[in-house]
Amino acid sequence: MTTDSGVNGFEFAAARAGLRGRDGLDVGLIVCRQGAAAAAVFTTNLVQAAPVILGRERIKSGRLRAVLVNSAIANACTGAEGMANAERCAALTAGALDVDEETVLVSSTGVIGEQLEMARFEDVIPELAAGLSPDALPEVARAVMTTDTVPKISTRKARFGVAGEEIKISGIAKGAGMIMPNMATMLSFIMTDANISPALLRALLPVAVEQSFNRITVDGDTSTNDTVIIMASGRSGGREINAPDSPEAVVFAGMLNDITRDLALQIVADGEGATKLVTIQVRGALTDAEAELAARTVADSALVKTAFFGSDPNWGRIMAALGRSGAAFNPARVAISVGNSELIKEGHLVSAAAERSAAQTMAQKEFTLIIDLGAGEAGTEIYTCDLSLDYVRINADYRT
Amino acid sequence: MTTDSGVNGFEFAAARAGLRGRDGLDVGLIVCRQGAAAAAVFTTNLVQAAPVILGRERIKSGRLRAVLVNSAIANACTGAEGMANAERCAALTAGALDVDEETVLVSSTGVIGEQLEMARFEDVIPELAAGLSPDALPEVARAVMTTDTVPKISTRKARFGVAGEEIKISGIAKGAGMIMPNMATMLSFIMTDANISPALLRALLPVAVEQSFNRITVDGDTSTNDTVIIMASGRSGGREINAPDSPEAVVFAGMLNDITRDLALQIVADGEGATKLVTIQVRGALTDAEAELAARTVADSALVKTAFFGSDPNWGRIMAALGRSGAAFNPARVAISVGNSELIKEGHLVSAAAERSAAQTMAQKEFTLIIDLGAGEAGTEIYTCDLSLDYVRINADYRT
Repeated sequence: MTTDSGVNGFEFAAARAGLRGRDGLDVGLIVCRQGAAAAAVFTTNLVQAAPVILGRERIKSGRLRAVLVNSAIANACTGAEGMANAERCAALTAGALDVDEETVLVSSTGVIGEQLEMARFEDVIPELAAGLSPDALPEVARAVMTTDTVPKISTRKARFGVAGEEIKISGIAKGAGMIMPNMATMLSFIMTDANISPALLRALLPVAVEQSFNRITVDGDTSTNDTVIIMASGRSGGREINAPDSPEAVVFAGMLNDITRDLALQIVADGEGATKLVTIQVRGALTDAEAELAARTVADSALVKTAFFGSDPNWGRIMAALGRSGAAFNPARVAISVGNSELIKEGHLVSAAAERSAAQTMAQKEFTLIIDLGAGEAGTEIYTCDLSLDYVRINADYRT
Repeated sequence: MTTDSGVNGFEFAAARAGLRGRDGLDVGLIVCRQGAAAAAVFTTNLVQAAPVILGRERIKSGRLRAVLVNSAIANACTGAEGMANAERCAALTAGALDVDEETVLVSSTGVIGEQLEMARFEDVIPELAAGLSPDALPEVARAVMTTDTVPKISTRKARFGVAGEEIKISGIAKGAGMIMPNMATMLSFIMTDANISPALLRALLPVAVEQSFNRITVDGDTSTNDTVIIMASGRSGGREINAPDSPEAVVFAGMLNDITRDLALQIVADGEGATKLVTIQVRGALTDAEAELAARTVADSALVKTAFFGSDPNWGRIMAALGRSGAAFNPARVAISVGNSELIKEGHLVSAAAERSAAQTMAQKEFTLIIDLGAGEAGTEIYTCDLSLDYVRINADYRT
């Protein structure tokens, strides 16, 4: 990993537009002037924000030159006016950069149901375009923050063989924290200088998302704005990578998976009010789908998550969550460990000492809960956080 | 409604067994010496407590003479020893009452994974049997409380026609509060003096449960011990009611539905940390199943429930929950009201004044959220409560 997050072929800028009176950076711009191969993944929520609807269309070409992103206002549930505003933001950006507006995406996160303040965009977009720099990615990472307490950024480099090109991927993300106090939006933008085809990006991105952003949960809520965009400038040189089974594609996919997983863990560790990052590992399920059901039910249970907050190895709540998950298993064959402490074996508490040891492990900032259903061979992992007093405090405040 | 909760043919007793060192009443006994027609509904959780496994078998006969209930220990995840203890409790009760042990059910709520302290049951069961009284139902309601803050009891009387028999139904329940601090167990025991067949009770009880206990949610967790038992002594006289479409069956079903709904609302209003009782009413869904999905997703959303706590008419969170629920609808046709305040019409905020008015309604202890999906004719109601700081405080405490 490196702290130098710039990627050959990309320029960045961030600024303060003062949306909803917000202090600090609230708009960001990512530009690849010569055009990048691109792919994206969007929210599965039926209610989709205007920038998501626009983005779905424009990403079909597989080529992008710029992404404009703002926090504070989600531009969701904003009707025809919201769509027109999203298109206008893209057009203003295209104008300032002198590129085709069809190659510009916009992305928003923040309060639902309010319109973008267009006068502020008219002022700030030329400023962003004039201030582009190869080194400003960390500022964009800050501009997209809502209730995030830290910016999320991740960078990897690799070389294709001993004499091959060196490539780099940098990604930023904002997390499952809700803007004061509306939405749990997850946004991520990933840049690489690899020379890689849009078709291969389209194939690799969903795989990376599935094992990273789709495996974290803060509160089980899915946003109207969730978006992950990847752009490849091709500036590393070399031939275009387009065969999924080529050695270059394998290296690239590994780096991409690594970065998305890193960003996803950064998000859940910074979940609203979160004091702990917990990996829920399920083994011994009959099928992959049942492993998923079991892991997600435990990871989203309010009772289990408050027990995490209290460092309480409350295995009764875990058993009850498993029992209602829909996964088939025999309770008398279940084993549960917290980190290295084996807590439950064949459905029973191992010992009072095991419980004390598990409680100590749970007092740490990161731990793994391992559940063996004893029913089959399937397994999965989900990353979650605890449910704390601060989660309620953050989300009960009236919007201001 | 009457405060006199006794029911002809039934006797009750409650006592302190001191389970887990608990102060106050923790065991109760319900007896119908001559035998009652009976039916029961049990948890759907795959992990089932020993008394539930035993009860499922014994209720098949349709006749019961006694139910022994305890709080503090759930007798769940307790293996062969737990089953033997449940059977032993029933045998001790049968011996003290001089009845067939096959006609005795036991019911437990409390900490999972601990064994019942049998010496305490050996001491207390004769005491219960010696202390039976027609008037002690309120004490049994107190004995089953865990984190409940108030006992739950409901009584109805009706007469079958001008000159017909008067019948009575009394029910008690304990709520979706977790014993210090383990399980959200829901128990309810319903007694009537009506002369009604086991087959008809078996038909009516699930219908009553479906529109009452199955329509409340505190945190989406389902217990290993949930149990609803109805017993009919037949002491009101008259012919046995066994035809589902007879006028008597219709009157009885109405009373039963009324009592179970009353008890269910008492439970959710006393949900852990709850400060508000919220009715989620969904209309305009395409199908009943989609209405259910939409209502339950909103009712269980941590984001929506914290907004209830904060009296925040945060319709963005409601729209987002609807959007991920799986129900089909057009966001631009959704209408949302809080009580009488129309907040959203055709997917848009009606006015800032409507939002202020909704916030005022939400500051009350009870209100209704009405969601019209604008997609069809189906609808449903779910009762929920807010997610408060006290919910986290109660459930994060280490078990003591």
